[in-house]
Order: sequence, then C-alpha cells, then structure tokens
Amino acid sequence: MTLPAPTYPLSIAANQIKRSVMRDLIALASQPEIVSFAGGLPAADHLPLPEVETCLEAVLARDGRRALQYGPPFLPLREWIAGYMRQRGVRCGVENVFITNGAQQALEILGRLLLDQGEAAVVEALTFTGIAQVMDAHGARLRAAALDLATGVDPDDFEAALTRGGRARVGAVIPDFHNPAGASLTLPKRQQLAAAAARSGIPIIEDDCYSLLRYTGETLPPIKAFDEAEQVFYVSSFSKIIAPAMRLGWIVAPAPLLPKLTVLRESIDLESSQLLQRVVTEFVTRGLLRPHLGALNAANHERRDALLDALERELGSRARWAAPSGGLFVWVTLPDEVDTAALLPRAFEHKVAFIPGVNFSVEGRYTNCLRLNYSNNVPERIRLGVRRLAAALDEYGAHG
Amino acid sequence: MTLPAPTYPLSIAANQIKRSVMRDLIALASQPEIVSFAGGLPAADHLPLPEVETCLEAVLARDGRRALQYGPPFLPLREWIAGYMRQRGVRCGVENVFITNGAQQALEILGRLLLDQGEAAVVEALTFTGIAQVMDAHGARLRAAALDLATGVDPDDFEAALTRGGRARVGAVIPDFHNPAGASLTLPKRQQLAAAAARSGIPIIEDDCYSLLRYTGETLPPIKAFDEAEQVFYVSSFSKIIAPAMRLGWIVAPAPLLPKLTVLRESIDLESSQLLQRVVTEFVTRGLLRPHLGALNAANHERRDALLDALERELGSRARWAAPSGGLFVWVTLPDEVDTAALLPRAFEHKVAFIPGVNFSVEGRYTNCLRLNYSNNVPERIRLGVRRLAAALDEYGAHG
Repeated sequence: MTLPAPTYPLSIAANQIKRSVMRDLIALASQPEIVSFAGGLPAADHLPLPEVETCLEAVLARDGRRALQYGPPFLPLREWIAGYMRQRGVRCGVENVFITNGAQQALEILGRLLLDQGEAAVVEALTFTGIAQVMDAHGARLRAAALDLATGVDPDDFEAALTRGGRARVGAVIPDFHNPAGASLTLPKRQQLAAAAARSGIPIIEDDCYSLLRYTGETLPPIKAFDEAEQVFYVSSFSKIIAPAMRLGWIVAPAPLLPKLTVLRESIDLESSQLLQRVVTEFVTRGLLRPHLGALNAANHERRDALLDALERELGSRARWAAPSGGLFVWVTLPDEVDTAALLPRAFEHKVAFIPGVNFSVEGRYTNCLRLNYSNNVPERIRLGVRRLAAALDEYGAHG
Repeated sequence: MTLPAPTYPLSIAANQIKRSVMRDLIALASQPEIVSFAGGLPAADHLPLPEVETCLEAVLARDGRRALQYGPPFLPLREWIAGYMRQRGVRCGVENVFITNGAQQALEILGRLLLDQGEAAVVEALTFTGIAQVMDAHGARLRAAALDLATGVDPDDFEAALTRGGRARVGAVIPDFHNPAGASLTLPKRQQLAAAAARSGIPIIEDDCYSLLRYTGETLPPIKAFDEAEQVFYVSSFSKIIAPAMRLGWIVAPAPLLPKLTVLRESIDLESSQLLQRVVTEFVTRGLLRPHLGALNAANHERRDALLDALERELGSRARWAAPSGGLFVWVTLPDEVDTAALLPRAFEHKVAFIPGVNFSVEGRYTNCLRLNYSNNVPERIRLGVRRLAAALDEYGAHG
C-alpha cells in the first residue's frame, strides 16, 4: 500500500534537501557478496568489545543509577579531553571542551552558531559530505578552495576564498588523512591556515576525526595548536578511535561561547548519554586507548598495504593514487575520460562498490576519481575487490 | 582569566537564543541541602539498574561487535514500537516508526520538517519548554491556545488558533499528565483535536512522553488513534519509562515522510547508538517494561499522595491544584497577587525550589502558579519541602 504524500507545506529545507546518494549506495553495497570499498566504517573485527564490556561493568558497579539518569556533561570526560588536547599542543582547559553526539553533531551545532540563510561558507574542493550537508541545511552558499591530493588544502586559495565575492561566515578543513582524499596537511600549511583565520577574522572549523589513526610517520599538531587568535573551532570524535555506537565527540571552542553552544544543543536533543559518557571516560582513563589504537592501526596498515599492492598490480598503468599514512581511505584518480559514476553500475555487476569522486565535490568535479575504504575488509577481500574493480574498468573501457 | 567574546558574527538564532533559565535553576536546585521540586527527572531510586545490566550483557554476548558499529535504525525496536502503537489503537506499521534520540530530538526533526522563519505555530497556553525552544529555534511565531487545568487544551480554541491571523504551519499538544499542568485530555477532546487537524489541513504534534506513567484510572487512546487523515505526528520517549541515559524516542509519521526525516536527521548526528537501541529492544521484548512500570508508578503514586496531603495541610487555604492520575508533576495556583518568580529567591533561602509558572507560558501568564515535581523525592523529603515552601510563602506574604 502506497500512501499519498502529505498535502500540508514542508519547510524550505525539507523541500530542498536531497536524498543521500551515499547512504543509499552504502546500504546497497552492504550485501555480503559485494566487496564494499564504499563505507567509512572502522574495522568491524577490531572494535574493542572486551574493553567496552569491562568498562560498562565498572561504570554500572561504581556509578549505579547515576549512569542511567539525566545529568550535566560528564566533567571527567571533559577533563580527559582537555588533557589530550594539551598533549597535542593546544592551549585548552575544561572550560573549552563541549561534548557532542559525535563529530556530525559538533558540525551541526557550529553551523547553527555561525550560519544564516544565504551566507557563504568555504569548504575544500574535496570534502566530507557531512560538512556540506550541515552547511546546506543552514542555507549556506558553498565556495571551494583548491586541494593538493598529497598535502591537503592550499592555504592561500583558502584564505582568498574566505573573502572572494563577500565575506564568508566560516571555513572548514580536514587536517589529517582527509576524507575522501587521504591527504594530510604539512606543518607550514597548518600554521598558514591558523594565520588566515586570524587575519581574515573568519572562524575555521577543523574537523579532525582521523589523526589518531596514524600507522606511519610523525603526528603533527592540529591547526588549533597555532590558533593564538581563538579563531579555530576544533572538532573530533570517539567513533573511529573507540566505537561509533558510543556516539560521542567534542568541540574545543572559546570559553565564552560554551553557554551559547549549550543552549543551541539543548533544543536539538537535550544532552549526551550519561552511560556512554562514563564508559568512554573509563576506557580512556584506564589507558585502554593507546593499546587499542596500536592493534587497530596495525590492522589498518596491513589493509592499506594490501590495497596499494593490489592497485599497483591490477591498475598500475591506468590509475594514480597517493599512499596515506593513516586513516581509512585511498583516493584513486583514473584517466580523465572515465566517469566513475557511470563505472559504478558495472562495478556492482562485478560485485564491488566504491564512492564516485563527484560525491565529495561541491562543484561537481573529480568525475574521474573514486574513494576506496580499506579499513573494513581483510586483505584477501581487498585483493578480490580490486581484481573485480579492474574487470569492471576493462569492461567500461571496452564498451564506454 | 576571562577571555574576550569572539568578534566574528554569530547566526541570528545564536544571537536571539536566551539562556535557559530552567536549566540554570535546576542546576542550582541540585545542591543536596535543597529539596528540589524543580526538575523533571524520573525517580532516581527506581531506575531499572539490574534490568539494564542484564540487557547489556545479553546484547553484547549475542550481537558482539555489531552492537558497537554504525548501523541502520534497529528494525526489532521499530517493530516493537509499531506493535505497542497498535495496542494503543493507532494504525501503525514498522514503516511509520522513526527512531530518535529522545522526544526532544523528535521535536527538533519535526520543527526542521515543518517550520520556516516567521511562520506561525500553535502551542498550549502552558507548554513544555522544549516545544517552545524548538519552535523558537526555527523562527516560528508562537500562538497560545486556551487550556483547562484538569482536562487539557480547549480543542475549539486550538482549532481557531491554527488559522487566527493566517495559517499556522503546525500545532503541538501534550495529551496525558501534561508538563507542566498535569492535565489529561478527555476522550472527546482527543477526537476533536484529530478532527481539527483533518479539517484545517494543519498537522499536529502529539508529544506523549507520560501516558505509561499512569497509576490510577483508565489509559485513553492517543489523539493519533483518531487520526484518519494522517495529520498527527505522534512523539514519545523511553527516557521516563526506562531511563534518560538510553537517549531514545520515536516519531510515528506518514510512511512517505520517513526518507525525508532520515535525511533531515542525518546532518544532525547521523544516527542513534546501535548499543542503546539493542539494549532498549532487549528490555521491552523480554517483558521487563510492564513490571518496571508497575513498581515505578506505585512509587510515583505514593509520592503524589504525599505531596497532595502536604499541600492540603500546609497550603490548603491559600492554593488550588488538580490531582493528576499519573506523570511527574502537580501544578499549583496561588492567589493572584503572588508572583512565584519573586517567591523563588525566598524559597531558595528556605532550601526548597520549584519552577515558576511563567516559564511555561509563551504569553508571560501564569505568574501566580508553580510546577512541583514529585517523582524524584521520597515522601519524607516531599513533606519537608512543602513545609519549607509554606514558610517561604508566609514570609513573602508578610514582606511582599
């Protein structure tokens, strides 16, 4: 039975909003016979189940019913985050830390804080779809800043974009293991971006969900570490480093704005779960994060190597990519004449899936690129998937 | 060290939004020496800790890492909710059930679906502050419909308000054990409100978080049960019937709107916790809800009786109230000349707290009223609190 759509008016936002192509695609690709490089899930077989069980038991034994009640943002969690941020070189106290339901809610709250209908915002030429979605939902006109696939956004172009054709309200940058590009900003670029925010007087959101997922090379300080002018909102999440079902993330913001963030968030969903806040606190204060990340990143490293080897073997003459030093994604550039959105149905026929590059471009560019997630497949499946991808590409080349 | 406020522009919403007086007040009242009637918390000593522990263990043992990963809205939870709604007399399938992070997020998503800046919305003359906050955040102009303190909103005035001075986009009603008034709608009023939504073509949000908290009398079907025209959005939550830290609620909506709700929610916070969705499903499918509600409502009943007896004894000649048949609140009306906002500082001096009635009125009325929560204090504390309230009122009467 198909019901008729309602006859009453919906909001402008509800009428404008597009069905999420990526969500549909990831759902379609989740059938077990398909090797899916489409999602952005952390390694399912490395989620820290015994550790979370231990922490849950400890929290319920110690805190009892307080862990099930309403309550203020959990202070020991904010304290741990502030300490972690200081280790990363950020001047941060508990008064700067705002708890959210994951990085996506952090982005939504900052969109609500900073954006109005018709105002401009700057994103990278390739950006996480959740950033573009939030800015769309708040009526922003999006401008794209040029991006280098190995070293991330161009700070000069980013700074120019902030004021090109009128002052933007906000810019957004992903510093490490960029989603989707895999790129990490060099140290000078981080310093230049902090300086650009200070000079322009326009705040930047630094969406840093991946920097702890490094398996080779040196971790750099975030842009926020160079933010003397307090113009950078730092955003991160426990979803990729502990588990998505914790639904917890945070914002580092100027202390005078925290009451504002609190009220803006209150009407969205009141607060984060006391239980999950305490479980995550237990996890990090027991020192479980470092060993967990060690095992997780070792697995990711092996999977990345499997993917890069397979790409070299199967697509070496037809594709280019940069090797990321962490994170979840490899970005692949095919010859200009390949349209990866048109390649996708053939890939599905060959039982392999990816996200076409155009989905990450607010300008409709990168049509010959694709994003491959390697964290959520074992090496054997990765090799199988790349063979299937090469076969789909052969067929596409033969038939257009 | 006080940091300067930022110099960049904030959004219209961020500039307009008011600090939440109620949140500040509830925080202030949480000092242990104060008897707080201010909050809206379920009975802390009756939160189902052993049951939640059992369900957590069962879920982690059975579902393992799937309970920690990203995932779609948990189908068995949607199925249970659909069955529960059918028991309440609502025509409801799984295709109508949308999972949210509590009722507050349900309200936010419906605000996002239905409201635009400057459009009108109808609320009850007394309403839950979270409803008014959401509508404010989406730029709505609020109209109030008349309310009877025993039998709830006046359907004729509500219907008239929907089109008074231009068509409203939406109305909102609390059917059972109204927050703050304690009132429950009669059966004819429910039928009239469903008819009003059908006749006007303007959708109504039915915010029903309390109907399972009944300890005497007969449970009536929700307004949604009479909603032949599919004009009613039904909203409810597990916060008051299981535990707030589950952060789960739901919307019953027309099936064609569910993809829209999904996309509108995606940019807010992606999804609800797989772990908590599975724990709540385990709780309800194991049949733990009915016995838990039995014990909880018995405790609430005893606490309500303690409050009503104490009010009669201490304030019988100076105040009026209706006895609710469930829920968390008693609404007290004092003589017209008493300003309960002015009484509150004296009450704090006497170490008792409540919420002044004006906080629940979008018109600034009910200045001689106050809301008392009885669920989160044992009878002895309730009696002590009412004695203190009477003393504060004596002093207020003597000194103005």
